[in-house]
Amino acid sequence: MTVDHVGIAVRNLAEAAALLEAALGLVVTERYDLPHEGVRLAFLSGGATDLELLEPVGDAGPLARFLSSRGPGLHHVAFRVPDIRQALARAASAGCRPVDPAPRPGARNRQVAFLHPSTTGGLLIELVEHPE
Amino acid sequence: MTVDHVGIAVRNLAEAAALLEAALGLVVTERYDLPHEGVRLAFLSGGATDLELLEPVGDAGPLARFLSSRGPGLHHVAFRVPDIRQALARAASAGCRPVDPAPRPGARNRQVAFLHPSTTGGLLIELVEHPE
Repeated sequence: MTVDHVGIAVRNLAEAAALLEAALGLVVTERYDLPHEGVRLAFLSGGATDLELLEPVGDAGPLARFLSSRGPGLHHVAFRVPDIRQALARAASAGCRPVDPAPRPGARNRQVAFLHPSTTGGLLIELVEHPE
Repeated sequence: MTVDHVGIAVRNLAEAAALLEAALGLVVTERYDLPHEGVRLAFLSGGATDLELLEPVGDAGPLARFLSSRGPGLHHVAFRVPDIRQALARAASAGCRPVDPAPRPGARNRQVAFLHPSTTGGLLIELVEHPE
């Protein structure tokens, strides 16, 4: 089980990326706009595990609500799984409920699913399918 | 710049570790008690990047205050650096202020330092020295 990336909620993607580049020497490797999810994002290389900066587009989506209630900061942790439906079944057997009824396409053309933090001890966990 | 681990604040270390083991197949690899820091912790292997579960001991320390105000969940992200004083100097030049005046011994016999979230855009960032 490998950590794929750590998701970070930010108010301004360009400013947050510039600060992490200057302070830590991280480098932005990819940018995506996902308007249907109300988010624009950038990946920064952090070795085997990337950082994913997430800026809301509009103020109606879950990311905007997260920022309103908790402020910018750590948002989710994502794990690579070889078979996302199998991984969801395992998580469900441990009592972890998915946010959406089925996996859906996420960034980087990967199938993704989130586990609801109320069922994981407070963690928003993303599963990212990387077939072997 | 490599992500070393992701820190997660929990109320009960044994319960949180058992849930992540059952739901995701993660495995606890190390446990530490750091009473002088008011914390007991466990590392779970997540590939190149570990998860670090942190349970407060007592209710007076910063971790207990974090749990009181924000509840359990993601707490910090830690990066490996070859030279922690050099890394702190770089971060300082970008405006990121350390929590403590100097690096100190942390888990796994590593020198560590934290950057204050008010200076990093909301992230509690840990630097962990891994001399090359």
